[in-house]
Amino acid sequence: MSGLFHDLERSPTNTQVALDELLSAAKWNDDGLIPAIAQQHDSGEVLMMAWMNRAALEETLSTGRVCYWSRSRQAFWRKGETSGQQQQLVEARFDCDGDTLLLQVDQSGPACHTGRRSCFYLRLSTSMAEIDREPLMSADELYGMNR
Amino acid sequence: MSGLFHDLERSPTNTQVALDELLSAAKWNDDGLIPAIAQQHDSGEVLMMAWMNRAALEETLSTGRVCYWSRSRQAFWRKGETSGQQQQLVEARFDCDGDTLLLQVDQSGPACHTGRRSCFYLRLSTSMAEIDREPLMSADELYGMNR
Repeated sequence: MSGLFHDLERSPTNTQVALDELLSAAKWNDDGLIPAIAQQHDSGEVLMMAWMNRAALEETLSTGRVCYWSRSRQAFWRKGETSGQQQQLVEARFDCDGDTLLLQVDQSGPACHTGRRSCFYLRLSTSMAEIDREPLMSADELYGMNR
Repeated sequence: MSGLFHDLERSPTNTQVALDELLSAAKWNDDGLIPAIAQQHDSGEVLMMAWMNRAALEETLSTGRVCYWSRSRQAFWRKGETSGQQQQLVEARFDCDGDTLLLQVDQSGPACHTGRRSCFYLRLSTSMAEIDREPLMSADELYGMNR
């Protein structure tokens, strides 16, 4: 584990470190990415998980609008750029070992590309999985007929 | 993307599929793992993120006690086995493309190995990061003096 995150584990509350130093110590994976969980700030609903590289995180913190890194497109993914359903950043946090981000966001409309509010609409039981969330709008409405 | 998850995107609410079929279509990474977000079921607090392989998820669903796969120890990690702070499963969900799990849990005491309730105690701003959560107990209390 990175020395800085390890040192912070036992540091007192209110300890501060420079963002640049923390980002240099964070555990970006072999592709330079860290998973980021997006949670609606007021309801607490977990909306989605996507990935960020350092530049995407820095852009998100400076603009206040959430920007991921799309692994499939290998490009910045400014949430809402195509669908119009933006994510505004309320708060960003790293976890104890610097390998996961938690974003408190304000999401307009659906976060999921299927038109559902959250991507987590497949509930598991011991033998089955079931779709238990309705779309707020269709994928066609969200992206037009090109999709 | 897996055909099954893609097909389910436009399937009606209440559509069911066999768990075995869903797990075979899920996007386990090159190490056979999927990230699992643990959220306290009643407060909505996101507690931690860890990893599961298929066997860990199947055990979790059948026992109702959360079992991860520890990447550092390369072994099953039954939450609370060492610390006593167990995680009981309330609900498990897959996301739209089958590469992330969301677990609603009932966590006793701290979820974080630092003794804090949540692992996400490092709040970011545009230039700084700050520890803003107190431990519920010390790591020594949590694990004894061996750590």
